[in-house]
Amino acid sequence: MRARFETVIRAAQDSICARIEAVEAAAAAAEGAAASPRGFRQDAWTRDGGGGGVTRVLQGGRVFEKAGVNVSVVFGSMPPEAYRAATGKAQEAAGAGKAPAAAADKNAADAAGASPASSAGRVPFFAAGISSVMHPLNPHAPTMHFNYRYFETEAWNGLPAQWWFGGGTDITPSYLYEEDMLHFHGSYKTVCDRHDPAFYPRFKQWADDYFLIGHRGERRGLGGIFFDDLNDRPAEELLAFATDAVGAVSDAYVPLVERRADQPFTEREREWQQLRRGRYVEFNLVYDRGTTFGLKTGGRIESILMSLPLTARWEYDADPPAGTPEAELVDCCRNPRTWV
Amino acid sequence: MRARFETVIRAAQDSICARIEAVEAAAAAAEGAAASPRGFRQDAWTRDGGGGGVTRVLQGGRVFEKAGVNVSVVFGSMPPEAYRAATGKAQEAAGAGKAPAAAADKNAADAAGASPASSAGRVPFFAAGISSVMHPLNPHAPTMHFNYRYFETEAWNGLPAQWWFGGGTDITPSYLYEEDMLHFHGSYKTVCDRHDPAFYPRFKQWADDYFLIGHRGERRGLGGIFFDDLNDRPAEELLAFATDAVGAVSDAYVPLVERRADQPFTEREREWQQLRRGRYVEFNLVYDRGTTFGLKTGGRIESILMSLPLTARWEYDADPPAGTPEAELVDCCRNPRTWV
Repeated sequence: MRARFETVIRAAQDSICARIEAVEAAAAAAEGAAASPRGFRQDAWTRDGGGGGVTRVLQGGRVFEKAGVNVSVVFGSMPPEAYRAATGKAQEAAGAGKAPAAAADKNAADAAGASPASSAGRVPFFAAGISSVMHPLNPHAPTMHFNYRYFETEAWNGLPAQWWFGGGTDITPSYLYEEDMLHFHGSYKTVCDRHDPAFYPRFKQWADDYFLIGHRGERRGLGGIFFDDLNDRPAEELLAFATDAVGAVSDAYVPLVERRADQPFTEREREWQQLRRGRYVEFNLVYDRGTTFGLKTGGRIESILMSLPLTARWEYDADPPAGTPEAELVDCCRNPRTWV
Repeated sequence: MRARFETVIRAAQDSICARIEAVEAAAAAAEGAAASPRGFRQDAWTRDGGGGGVTRVLQGGRVFEKAGVNVSVVFGSMPPEAYRAATGKAQEAAGAGKAPAAAADKNAADAAGASPASSAGRVPFFAAGISSVMHPLNPHAPTMHFNYRYFETEAWNGLPAQWWFGGGTDITPSYLYEEDMLHFHGSYKTVCDRHDPAFYPRFKQWADDYFLIGHRGERRGLGGIFFDDLNDRPAEELLAFATDAVGAVSDAYVPLVERRADQPFTEREREWQQLRRGRYVEFNLVYDRGTTFGLKTGGRIESILMSLPLTARWEYDADPPAGTPEAELVDCCRNPRTWV
């Protein structure tokens, strides 16, 4: 399972980056034969405690302001606190204090075994994941995030070995285009339905719950699917689902960017996008479990914060007037809608 | 003490805002007789559980991109968890779990009694504070933050009544000018020395410790003074110190802005400032106790997040090359220096 999931996410990193580079190449070609397209820069890194990753970032493109895809495959041992944070169930079993369930999430990988000095009393683990955020330049083209991960712990201190899958893909437009949401959510409903008709409604709701910016009473964006701690059926079936879901990213997302990338926009629309990116930063730094856990436990900072937009904006009291497209977007973030 | 501290912070809000508006007026006058200067917008707000505040924000000025000064004076009762978070000592006395000491800080005011529905088992409190952040446009002019607060709890559940002062003023330049740091730190050393020669070294160190962005291993800026839970001498003496410190803000800071506001700058210097503002956002959203406590317990969001810059930037792996002014600034943030 470890090797097969690793193969899936490495292939996904290649194919998604290639698709994004093709979008940039087309935009460069449209400029003229002499224009050179922007590509991904790649950094391979290793982790002291075991394993490592490959971070790819494209910055300052014609279509994408910032796009990153990170794969990490790490293993070693982690302190019991990290184990408790990582496993909701283990936490109950151990009767431990209130820790965020599955905080280990996408960066557990980078974070869990930050100080591998001693293995005494430490829990052996394996974590593999792919995570990505794409921020296009045009305010009418949505930001997209996805993350798929597989986690294992070995038996430890009377607790049994555990494994689970987590992940999801979600969309964050600055302006609402219902046909875009229909395409994106519809794509993921199709993927989900192939595996279990209960998946889409359950994981759509989970995304609406998870991506809440508590202090704003609004979501970061317009959701998608999100799931965590998933081990309620054979790993084989969940691997097939995760493979299908990560494989659907490009076709669910890239057409929306291609449709909007050349749409004219005003300075004010660009400012509104920047304000929404401020919200994106608020969610990621204050609430996202993978980010907050990773930052506080010593993950690779540049890979974790790759998700932040190139630029963001905070105006005081910037609520848009009722009846505007900006207000409609906020309404969707406050009151999640059914898209398909 | 309550009334006298309130008088001090309301007067400070008036005088500091007037000084900032004078800077904007001078900049407008320099543009020509027809230019109208930007002023503070004021929002008075009330808190359901008791008290309220006055938030003043100046946005899009000629000199200041965003400047805010918030005063809040609130009272009521707070849940025991907030009490424990608010009081390091009470926490020890109650044998409670590990909570951030004095998290109540500057927004305790707004946050502590967010749900005043029931007063059963709740701790009566009073909190008054002034907090402010000034973000100038020119990358050679530093950002400045200050906050002074007074907190009281009444006797509760066998614990005695308590009171304390907290606060500080700190400076966040994007480029190092030693003469500016000498002026700023020197001003606060002078203030401190008038009250206790032990204050400046102690509070300068406290600021260097407090403003650490843990995951970066660097401070938000170049420090100043910071103190909390201060009640080790008569309240009268601490009131005099806090009054002196908040009264020193304008003369410690405004001359630096006046000195740098018209200094020419390049696009790259402006981008570097934006990257440093990204760090500012990281500190405030991930580490600042008042901000994180306020966001999670229902304070007035617009007043709390007033501290965020108008714009910020995150580039992947943007460490400046050694030997550049940018690298020197980072070095000061990683290895705090002695300025006076």
